[in-house]
Amino acid sequence: MDTVELTEIRFNAHGLVPAVIQEACSGEILMVAYMSVESLQKTIESGNTWFYSRSRQCLWHKGETSGHFQTVRAIFVDCDADTLLIQVDQTGAACHTGHKSCFFRRLAGWDGDYTGNLSVLAELKNEIKEKSIHPTEKSYTAYLLQTGIDKICKKIGEESSEVIIAAKNAAAVTEEASPEAENLRLEVCKESADLLYHLSVVWEATGVDINDVMKILEERSHVKDNKKTVGHLDKTF
Amino acid sequence: MDTVELTEIRFNAHGLVPAVIQEACSGEILMVAYMSVESLQKTIESGNTWFYSRSRQCLWHKGETSGHFQTVRAIFVDCDADTLLIQVDQTGAACHTGHKSCFFRRLAGWDGDYTGNLSVLAELKNEIKEKSIHPTEKSYTAYLLQTGIDKICKKIGEESSEVIIAAKNAAAVTEEASPEAENLRLEVCKESADLLYHLSVVWEATGVDINDVMKILEERSHVKDNKKTVGHLDKTF
Repeated sequence: MDTVELTEIRFNAHGLVPAVIQEACSGEILMVAYMSVESLQKTIESGNTWFYSRSRQCLWHKGETSGHFQTVRAIFVDCDADTLLIQVDQTGAACHTGHKSCFFRRLAGWDGDYTGNLSVLAELKNEIKEKSIHPTEKSYTAYLLQTGIDKICKKIGEESSEVIIAAKNAAAVTEEASPEAENLRLEVCKESADLLYHLSVVWEATGVDINDVMKILEERSHVKDNKKTVGHLDKTF
Repeated sequence: MDTVELTEIRFNAHGLVPAVIQEACSGEILMVAYMSVESLQKTIESGNTWFYSRSRQCLWHKGETSGHFQTVRAIFVDCDADTLLIQVDQTGAACHTGHKSCFFRRLAGWDGDYTGNLSVLAELKNEIKEKSIHPTEKSYTAYLLQTGIDKICKKIGEESSEVIIAAKNAAAVTEEASPEAENLRLEVCKESADLLYHLSVVWEATGVDINDVMKILEERSHVKDNKKTVGHLDKTF
Protein backbone atom coordinates (compact mmCIF):
# COMPACT_ATOMS: atom_id res chain seq x y z
CA MET A 1 0.00 0.00 0.00
CA ASP A 2 1.22 3.52 -0.80
CA THR A 3 2.33 5.71 2.06
CA VAL A 4 2.08 9.44 2.76
CA GLU A 5 4.79 11.34 4.66
CA LEU A 6 3.83 13.41 7.68
CA THR A 7 5.16 16.49 5.85
CA GLU A 8 2.71 15.89 3.00
CA ILE A 9 -0.35 16.17 5.22
CA ARG A 10 -2.31 19.33 4.50
CA PHE A 11 -3.23 20.88 7.84
CA ASN A 12 -5.89 23.62 7.57
CA ALA A 13 -5.50 27.36 8.32
CA HIS A 14 -5.69 26.54 12.04
CA GLY A 15 -2.99 23.88 11.69
CA LEU A 16 -5.47 21.02 12.14
CA VAL A 17 -6.82 17.99 10.29
CA PRO A 18 -9.95 16.02 11.16
CA ALA A 19 -9.31 12.44 12.27
CA VAL A 20 -12.02 9.81 12.01
CA ILE A 21 -11.60 7.28 14.80
CA GLN A 22 -12.84 3.78 13.95
CA GLU A 23 -12.85 0.72 16.19
CA ALA A 24 -10.47 -1.68 14.44
CA CYS A 25 -12.18 -4.96 15.31
CA SER A 26 -15.80 -3.97 14.58
CA GLY A 27 -15.48 -1.13 12.07
CA GLU A 28 -17.74 1.06 14.23
CA ILE A 29 -17.12 4.84 14.00
CA LEU A 30 -16.34 6.07 17.49
CA MET A 31 -15.71 9.81 17.06
CA VAL A 32 -14.22 12.56 14.92
CA ALA A 33 -11.66 14.92 16.49
CA TYR A 34 -8.91 17.24 15.31
CA MET A 35 -5.16 16.75 15.29
CA SER A 36 -2.34 19.28 15.06
CA VAL A 37 1.04 18.14 13.77
CA GLU A 38 2.20 17.94 17.40
CA SER A 39 -0.73 15.78 18.51
CA LEU A 40 -0.19 13.50 15.51
CA GLN A 41 3.48 13.14 16.41
CA LYS A 42 2.57 12.31 20.02
CA THR A 43 0.04 9.77 18.73
CA ILE A 44 2.73 8.06 16.65
CA GLU A 45 5.29 8.14 19.48
CA SER A 46 2.97 6.90 22.22
CA GLY A 47 0.67 4.58 20.28
CA ASN A 48 -2.33 6.27 21.95
CA THR A 49 -4.46 8.98 20.36
CA TRP A 50 -3.68 12.63 21.15
CA PHE A 51 -5.91 15.39 19.78
CA TYR A 52 -6.03 19.17 19.74
CA SER A 53 -9.00 20.60 21.60
CA ARG A 54 -10.41 23.52 19.63
CA SER A 55 -12.46 24.74 22.61
CA ARG A 56 -9.66 24.53 25.18
CA GLN A 57 -6.93 25.29 22.63
CA CYS A 58 -4.54 22.69 23.94
CA LEU A 59 -3.30 19.17 23.35
CA TRP A 60 -5.54 16.48 24.74
CA HIS A 61 -4.46 12.94 25.55
CA LYS A 62 -7.64 10.92 24.99
CA GLY A 63 -8.40 8.85 28.09
CA GLU A 64 -6.11 10.77 30.42
CA THR A 65 -8.96 11.64 32.82
CA SER A 66 -11.45 8.85 31.96
CA GLY A 67 -8.97 6.01 31.54
CA HIS A 68 -10.67 5.31 28.20
CA PHE A 69 -7.52 5.29 26.07
CA GLN A 70 -7.42 4.45 22.37
CA THR A 71 -4.59 2.17 21.24
CA VAL A 72 -3.69 2.91 17.63
CA ARG A 73 -3.69 -0.03 15.21
CA ALA A 74 -3.46 1.68 11.80
CA ILE A 75 -3.37 5.21 10.33
CA PHE A 76 -4.67 6.03 6.85
CA VAL A 77 -4.56 9.31 4.90
CA ASP A 78 -7.19 10.27 2.33
CA CYS A 79 -6.62 11.16 -1.34
CA ASP A 80 -6.42 14.92 -0.60
CA ALA A 81 -4.11 14.31 2.39
CA ASP A 82 -6.34 16.54 4.53
CA THR A 83 -8.19 13.89 6.58
CA LEU A 84 -6.96 10.97 8.70
CA LEU A 85 -8.60 7.63 9.43
CA ILE A 86 -7.26 6.03 12.60
CA GLN A 87 -8.22 2.49 13.57
CA VAL A 88 -7.99 1.84 17.30
CA ASP A 89 -8.74 -0.55 20.12
CA GLN A 90 -11.05 1.38 22.44
CA THR A 91 -10.91 0.92 26.20
CA GLY A 92 -14.38 1.56 27.66
CA ALA A 93 -16.41 4.23 25.87
CA ALA A 94 -15.18 6.80 23.37
CA CYS A 95 -17.85 9.42 24.13
CA HIS A 96 -17.83 11.66 27.21
CA THR A 97 -21.57 10.85 27.62
CA GLY A 98 -20.68 7.22 28.38
CA HIS A 99 -21.88 5.93 25.00
CA LYS A 100 -19.42 3.74 23.18
CA SER A 101 -19.63 5.97 20.09
CA CYS A 102 -20.27 9.72 19.86
CA PHE A 103 -22.74 8.96 17.04
CA PHE A 104 -25.52 7.62 19.27
CA ARG A 105 -28.28 9.88 17.90
CA ARG A 106 -30.12 9.84 14.59
CA LEU A 107 -30.99 12.84 12.48
CA ALA A 108 -34.71 13.62 12.82
CA GLY A 109 -36.55 13.65 9.51
CA TRP A 110 -34.60 10.76 8.10
CA ASP A 111 -36.66 7.66 8.57
CA GLY A 112 -34.24 5.14 7.15
CA ASP A 113 -32.29 3.01 9.54
CA TYR A 114 -29.65 0.55 8.55
CA THR A 115 -29.54 -2.75 10.33
CA GLY A 116 -27.43 -5.76 9.60
CA ASN A 117 -23.98 -4.20 9.75
CA LEU A 118 -21.24 -6.78 10.24
CA SER A 119 -20.25 -5.10 13.50
CA VAL A 120 -23.01 -7.15 15.15
CA LEU A 121 -20.52 -10.04 15.17
CA ALA A 122 -18.14 -7.97 17.30
CA GLU A 123 -20.98 -7.10 19.67
CA LEU A 124 -21.97 -10.76 19.85
CA LYS A 125 -18.38 -11.63 20.79
CA ASN A 126 -18.51 -9.05 23.60
CA GLU A 127 -21.88 -10.35 24.85
CA ILE A 128 -20.60 -13.92 24.95
CA LYS A 129 -17.42 -12.90 26.78
CA GLU A 130 -19.54 -10.94 29.28
CA LYS A 131 -21.68 -14.02 29.94
CA SER A 132 -18.54 -16.09 30.35
CA ILE A 133 -17.20 -13.72 33.00
CA HIS A 134 -20.54 -12.90 34.64
CA PRO A 135 -22.86 -15.87 34.03
CA THR A 136 -26.55 -15.41 34.81
CA GLU A 137 -29.06 -18.16 35.45
CA LYS A 138 -31.29 -17.31 32.52
CA SER A 139 -28.50 -16.99 29.98
CA TYR A 140 -28.32 -19.71 27.34
CA THR A 141 -24.77 -18.62 26.55
CA ALA A 142 -23.72 -19.10 30.18
CA TYR A 143 -25.43 -22.51 30.17
CA LEU A 144 -23.53 -23.61 27.06
CA LEU A 145 -20.17 -22.41 28.36
CA GLN A 146 -20.71 -24.08 31.73
CA THR A 147 -21.90 -27.35 30.21
CA GLY A 148 -18.73 -27.56 28.17
CA ILE A 149 -17.21 -28.15 24.77
CA ASP A 150 -19.07 -31.41 23.97
CA LYS A 151 -22.45 -29.70 24.26
CA ILE A 152 -21.25 -26.71 22.18
CA CYS A 153 -19.84 -29.02 19.49
CA LYS A 154 -23.09 -31.00 19.35
CA LYS A 155 -24.87 -27.72 18.61
CA ILE A 156 -22.42 -27.02 15.75
CA GLY A 157 -23.40 -30.39 14.28
CA GLU A 158 -27.09 -29.69 14.73
CA GLU A 159 -27.07 -26.13 13.40
CA SER A 160 -24.91 -26.99 10.39
CA SER A 161 -27.37 -29.78 9.53
CA GLU A 162 -30.20 -27.25 9.74
CA VAL A 163 -28.31 -24.92 7.41
CA ILE A 164 -27.94 -27.80 4.95
CA ILE A 165 -31.65 -28.64 5.04
CA ALA A 166 -32.68 -24.97 4.69
CA ALA A 167 -30.19 -24.48 1.83
CA LYS A 168 -31.54 -27.53 -0.03
CA ASN A 169 -35.09 -26.13 0.25
CA ALA A 170 -34.13 -22.59 -0.77
CA ALA A 171 -31.89 -23.66 -3.67
CA ALA A 172 -34.96 -25.11 -5.40
CA VAL A 173 -36.52 -21.62 -5.60
CA THR A 174 -33.48 -19.33 -5.96
CA GLU A 175 -34.94 -17.61 -9.03
CA GLU A 176 -38.40 -17.13 -7.52
CA ALA A 177 -39.70 -13.98 -5.82
CA SER A 178 -42.82 -15.55 -4.32
CA PRO A 179 -43.61 -15.21 -0.59
CA GLU A 180 -42.93 -18.95 -0.21
CA ALA A 181 -39.48 -18.56 -1.76
CA GLU A 182 -38.79 -15.55 0.50
CA ASN A 183 -39.71 -17.68 3.50
CA LEU A 184 -37.32 -20.41 2.45
CA ARG A 185 -34.52 -17.85 2.10
CA LEU A 186 -35.43 -16.48 5.52
CA GLU A 187 -34.98 -19.98 6.92
CA VAL A 188 -31.43 -20.04 5.51
CA CYS A 189 -30.78 -16.71 7.25
CA LYS A 190 -32.17 -17.96 10.57
CA GLU A 191 -30.26 -21.23 10.54
CA SER A 192 -27.09 -19.40 9.47
CA ALA A 193 -27.52 -16.96 12.35
CA ASP A 194 -27.86 -19.90 14.74
CA LEU A 195 -24.71 -21.48 13.35
CA LEU A 196 -22.77 -18.21 13.59
CA TYR A 197 -23.90 -17.73 17.17
CA HIS A 198 -22.78 -21.22 18.19
CA LEU A 199 -19.53 -20.77 16.27
CA SER A 200 -18.95 -17.62 18.31
CA VAL A 201 -19.47 -19.68 21.48
CA VAL A 202 -16.89 -22.21 20.20
CA TRP A 203 -14.42 -19.34 19.78
CA GLU A 204 -15.02 -18.13 23.34
CA ALA A 205 -14.71 -21.68 24.73
CA THR A 206 -11.42 -22.31 22.92
CA GLY A 207 -9.84 -18.87 23.45
CA VAL A 208 -10.04 -17.87 19.78
CA ASP A 209 -10.70 -14.31 18.56
CA ILE A 210 -13.04 -13.70 15.63
CA ASN A 211 -10.56 -11.19 14.22
CA ASP A 212 -7.95 -13.95 13.96
CA VAL A 213 -10.47 -15.94 11.92
CA MET A 214 -10.98 -12.86 9.71
CA LYS A 215 -7.21 -12.56 9.22
CA ILE A 216 -7.11 -16.06 7.75
CA LEU A 217 -10.04 -15.30 5.44
CA GLU A 218 -8.22 -12.14 4.38
CA GLU A 219 -4.98 -14.01 3.62
CA ARG A 220 -6.72 -16.78 1.72
CA SER A 221 -8.80 -14.55 -0.45
CA HIS A 222 -5.91 -12.16 -1.10
CA VAL A 223 -8.25 -9.35 -0.18
CA LYS A 224 -5.59 -7.77 2.00
CA ASP A 225 -3.19 -6.53 -0.67
CA ASN A 226 -6.04 -5.17 -2.75
CA LYS A 227 -8.07 -4.02 0.19
CA LYS A 228 -8.67 -0.51 -0.98
CA THR A 229 -9.19 -1.12 -4.67
CA VAL A 230 -12.22 -2.30 -6.54
CA GLY A 231 -11.40 -5.33 -8.60
CA HIS A 232 -11.51 -9.05 -9.03
CA LEU A 233 -9.93 -10.27 -5.86
CA ASP A 234 -10.62 -13.98 -5.89
CA LYS A 235 -7.37 -15.92 -5.91
CA THR A 236 -7.26 -18.85 -3.59
CA PHE A 237 -10.95 -19.56 -3.35
CA MET B 1 -32.68 6.01 19.70
CA ASP B 2 -32.62 9.78 20.39
CA THR B 3 -32.94 12.11 17.45
CA VAL B 4 -31.45 15.50 16.63
CA GLU B 5 -33.37 18.15 14.66
CA LEU B 6 -31.78 19.68 11.58
CA THR B 7 -31.98 23.09 13.31
CA GLU B 8 -29.86 21.78 16.19
CA ILE B 9 -26.90 20.94 13.97
CA ARG B 10 -23.99 23.27 14.60
CA PHE B 11 -22.62 24.31 11.22
CA ASN B 12 -19.20 26.00 11.42
CA ALA B 13 -18.30 29.61 10.55
CA HIS B 14 -18.41 28.68 6.86
CA GLY B 15 -21.85 27.09 7.27
CA LEU B 16 -20.47 23.55 6.93
CA VAL B 17 -20.23 20.30 8.89
CA PRO B 18 -17.94 17.37 8.09
CA ALA B 19 -19.76 14.18 7.09
CA VAL B 20 -18.09 10.79 7.46
CA ILE B 21 -19.37 8.47 4.74
CA GLN B 22 -19.37 4.79 5.71
CA GLU B 23 -20.41 1.82 3.58
CA ALA B 24 -23.46 0.43 5.39
CA CYS B 25 -22.96 -3.26 4.68
CA SER B 26 -19.22 -3.53 5.36
CA GLY B 27 -18.52 -0.67 7.78
CA GLU B 28 -15.69 0.56 5.56
CA ILE B 29 -14.99 4.33 5.66
CA LEU B 30 -15.33 5.64 2.12
CA MET B 31 -14.66 9.39 2.43
CA VAL B 32 -15.10 12.54 4.47
CA ALA B 33 -16.72 15.58 2.82
CA TYR B 34 -18.54 18.73 3.90
CA MET B 35 -22.23 19.54 3.92
CA SER B 36 -24.03 22.88 4.05
CA VAL B 37 -27.59 23.00 5.35
CA GLU B 38 -28.77 23.07 1.73
CA SER B 39 -26.75 20.01 0.72
CA LEU B 40 -28.00 18.14 3.79
CA GLN B 41 -31.59 19.02 2.86
CA LYS B 42 -31.03 17.82 -0.71
CA THR B 43 -29.50 14.62 0.67
CA ILE B 44 -32.59 13.98 2.78
CA GLU B 45 -35.01 14.84 -0.06
CA SER B 46 -33.25 12.79 -2.74
CA GLY B 47 -31.86 9.89 -0.70
CA ASN B 48 -28.47 10.42 -2.42
CA THR B 49 -25.55 12.30 -0.90
CA TRP B 50 -25.05 15.97 -1.82
CA PHE B 51 -22.00 17.84 -0.52
CA TYR B 52 -20.62 21.38 -0.61
CA SER B 53 -17.36 21.67 -2.49
CA ARG B 54 -15.04 24.00 -0.60
CA SER B 55 -12.70 24.38 -3.60
CA ARG B 56 -15.42 25.02 -6.18
CA GLN B 57 -17.73 26.75 -3.68
CA CYS B 58 -20.86 25.06 -4.92
CA LEU B 59 -23.22 22.18 -4.23
CA TRP B 60 -22.02 18.86 -5.51
CA HIS B 61 -24.23 15.86 -6.21
CA LYS B 62 -21.93 12.91 -5.57
CA GLY B 63 -21.91 10.60 -8.59
CA GLU B 64 -23.43 13.12 -11.01
CA THR B 65 -20.47 12.89 -13.40
CA SER B 66 -19.06 9.45 -12.44
CA GLY B 67 -22.35 7.64 -11.94
CA HIS B 68 -20.99 6.50 -8.58
CA PHE B 69 -23.94 7.60 -6.47
CA GLN B 70 -24.30 6.97 -2.76
CA THR B 71 -27.72 5.80 -1.56
CA VAL B 72 -28.29 6.93 2.01
CA ARG B 73 -29.28 4.25 4.54
CA ALA B 74 -28.89 6.04 7.88
CA ILE B 75 -27.78 9.44 9.23
CA PHE B 76 -26.26 9.89 12.71
CA VAL B 77 -25.25 13.07 14.54
CA ASP B 78 -22.44 13.18 17.09
CA CYS B 79 -22.65 14.31 20.72
CA ASP B 80 -21.58 17.88 19.86
CA ALA B 81 -23.97 18.01 16.88
CA ASP B 82 -21.15 19.27 14.69
CA THR B 83 -20.30 16.10 12.74
CA LEU B 84 -22.45 13.70 10.71
CA LEU B 85 -22.03 9.98 10.09
CA ILE B 86 -23.85 8.83 6.96
CA GLN B 87 -24.15 5.14 6.11
CA VAL B 88 -24.60 4.47 2.41
CA ASP B 89 -24.73 1.88 -0.33
CA GLN B 90 -21.92 2.85 -2.71
CA THR B 91 -22.24 2.35 -6.46
CA GLY B 92 -18.76 1.74 -7.91
CA ALA B 93 -15.93 3.62 -6.19
CA ALA B 94 -16.21 6.53 -3.77
CA CYS B 95 -12.81 8.07 -4.60
CA HIS B 96 -12.10 10.09 -7.75
CA THR B 97 -8.87 8.06 -8.11
CA GLY B 98 -10.94 4.92 -8.76
CA HIS B 99 -10.22 3.40 -5.35
CA LYS B 100 -13.26 2.22 -3.47
CA SER B 101 -12.29 4.35 -0.44
CA CYS B 102 -10.42 7.67 -0.34
CA PHE B 103 -8.34 6.20 2.51
CA PHE B 104 -6.19 3.93 0.36
CA ARG B 105 -2.82 5.16 1.66
CA ARG B 106 -1.09 4.60 4.98
CA LEU B 107 0.78 7.23 6.99
CA ALA B 108 4.53 6.68 6.65
CA GLY B 109 6.29 6.22 9.96
CA TRP B 110 3.50 4.20 11.47
CA ASP B 111 4.40 0.55 11.10
CA GLY B 112 1.27 -0.95 12.60
CA ASP B 113 -1.30 -2.39 10.30
CA TYR B 114 -4.63 -3.79 11.36
CA THR B 115 -5.83 -6.92 9.71
CA GLY B 116 -8.82 -9.02 10.53
CA ASN B 117 -11.54 -6.39 10.29
CA LEU B 118 -15.00 -7.89 9.89
CA SER B 119 -15.39 -6.08 6.56
CA VAL B 120 -13.49 -8.99 5.01
CA LEU B 121 -16.81 -10.88 5.07
CA ALA B 122 -18.36 -8.19 2.85
CA GLU B 123 -15.40 -8.41 0.48
CA LEU B 124 -15.72 -12.20 0.44
CA LYS B 125 -19.39 -11.82 -0.50
CA ASN B 126 -18.41 -9.54 -3.40
CA GLU B 127 -15.70 -11.93 -4.57
CA ILE B 128 -18.10 -14.86 -4.56
CA LYS B 129 -20.75 -12.88 -6.45
CA GLU B 130 -18.10 -11.86 -8.98
CA LYS B 131 -17.15 -15.50 -9.53
CA SER B 132 -20.80 -16.39 -9.89
CA ILE B 133 -21.27 -13.79 -12.65
CA HIS B 134 -17.85 -14.21 -14.28
CA PRO B 135 -16.69 -17.77 -13.55
CA THR B 136 -13.06 -18.61 -14.32
CA GLU B 137 -11.66 -22.06 -14.87
CA LYS B 138 -9.24 -21.94 -11.95
CA SER B 139 -11.75 -20.60 -9.43
CA TYR B 140 -12.81 -23.01 -6.70
CA THR B 141 -15.79 -20.74 -5.98
CA ALA B 142 -16.98 -20.96 -9.59
CA TYR B 143 -16.51 -24.75 -9.47
CA LEU B 144 -18.65 -25.04 -6.33
CA LEU B 145 -21.42 -22.81 -7.71
CA GLN B 146 -21.50 -24.67 -11.01
CA THR B 147 -21.46 -28.10 -9.36
CA GLY B 148 -24.52 -27.16 -7.35
CA ILE B 149 -26.11 -27.07 -3.94
CA ASP B 150 -25.48 -30.73 -3.01
CA LYS B 151 -21.71 -30.27 -3.33
CA ILE B 152 -21.81 -27.01 -1.36
CA CYS B 153 -23.92 -28.60 1.38
CA LYS B 154 -21.52 -31.56 1.62
CA LYS B 155 -18.74 -29.06 2.25
CA ILE B 156 -20.78 -27.48 5.08
CA GLY B 157 -21.02 -30.93 6.66
CA GLU B 158 -17.29 -31.56 6.20
CA GLU B 159 -16.10 -28.16 7.42
CA SER B 160 -18.39 -28.13 10.45
CA SER B 161 -17.04 -31.57 11.41
CA GLU B 162 -13.52 -30.16 11.13
CA VAL B 163 -14.48 -27.24 13.38
CA ILE B 164 -15.81 -29.75 15.93
CA ILE B 165 -12.59 -31.80 15.89
CA ALA B 166 -10.38 -28.70 16.12
CA ALA B 167 -12.54 -27.29 18.94
CA LYS B 168 -12.29 -30.55 20.91
CA ASN B 169 -8.49 -30.45 20.61
CA ALA B 170 -8.18 -26.76 21.50
CA ALA B 171 -10.62 -26.91 24.42
CA ALA B 172 -8.24 -29.24 26.23
CA VAL B 173 -5.58 -26.51 26.33
CA THR B 174 -7.64 -23.29 26.60
CA GLU B 175 -5.67 -22.09 29.61
CA GLU B 176 -2.26 -22.87 28.11
CA ALA B 177 -0.01 -20.39 26.32
CA SER B 178 2.40 -22.98 24.88
CA PRO B 179 3.23 -23.05 21.16
CA GLU B 180 1.33 -26.35 20.91
CA ALA B 181 -1.79 -24.74 22.40
CA GLU B 182 -1.42 -21.78 20.05
CA ASN B 183 -1.28 -24.18 17.12
CA LEU B 184 -4.46 -25.90 18.25
CA ARG B 185 -6.21 -22.53 18.48
CA LEU B 186 -4.91 -21.65 15.02
CA GLU B 187 -6.54 -24.86 13.76
CA VAL B 188 -9.89 -23.66 15.13
CA CYS B 189 -9.37 -20.36 13.28
CA LYS B 190 -8.51 -22.12 10.01
CA GLU B 191 -11.43 -24.54 10.13
CA SER B 192 -13.77 -21.72 11.13
CA ALA B 193 -12.55 -19.65 8.16
CA ASP B 194 -13.25 -22.62 5.87
CA LEU B 195 -16.74 -22.99 7.30
CA LEU B 196 -17.46 -19.25 6.95
CA TYR B 197 -16.25 -19.29 3.36
CA HIS B 198 -18.50 -22.23 2.43
CA LEU B 199 -21.39 -20.65 4.33
CA SER B 200 -20.87 -17.55 2.17
CA VAL B 201 -21.10 -19.78 -0.91
CA VAL B 202 -24.38 -21.22 0.43
CA TRP B 203 -25.72 -17.68 0.75
CA GLU B 204 -24.77 -16.86 -2.85
CA ALA B 205 -26.27 -20.13 -4.11
CA THR B 206 -29.57 -19.55 -2.32
CA GLY B 207 -29.90 -15.80 -2.96
CA VAL B 208 -29.35 -14.82 0.67
CA ASP B 209 -27.52 -11.65 1.76
CA ILE B 210 -25.08 -11.77 4.70
CA ASN B 211 -26.56 -8.52 6.00
CA ASP B 212 -29.96 -10.23 6.35
CA VAL B 213 -28.24 -12.87 8.47
CA MET B 214 -26.70 -10.09 10.57
CA LYS B 215 -30.15 -8.51 11.04
CA ILE B 216 -31.41 -11.72 12.62
CA LEU B 217 -28.40 -11.93 14.93
CA GLU B 218 -29.01 -8.30 15.87
CA GLU B 219 -32.68 -8.91 16.70
CA ARG B 220 -31.99 -12.05 18.68
CA SER B 221 -29.23 -10.63 20.80
CA HIS B 222 -31.13 -7.38 21.41
CA VAL B 223 -28.01 -5.57 20.36
CA LYS B 224 -30.00 -3.26 18.13
CA ASP B 225 -31.78 -1.18 20.76
CA ASN B 226 -28.64 -0.79 22.80
CA LYS B 227 -26.37 -0.51 19.80
CA LYS B 228 -24.62 2.63 20.87
CA THR B 229 -24.30 1.97 24.59
CA VAL B 230 -21.80 -0.12 26.47
CA GLY B 231 -23.58 -2.63 28.63
CA HIS B 232 -24.80 -6.13 29.21
CA LEU B 233 -26.73 -6.82 26.05
CA ASP B 234 -27.34 -10.54 26.24
CA LYS B 235 -31.06 -11.22 26.29
CA THR B 236 -32.18 -14.02 24.06
CA PHE B 237 -28.98 -15.95 23.83
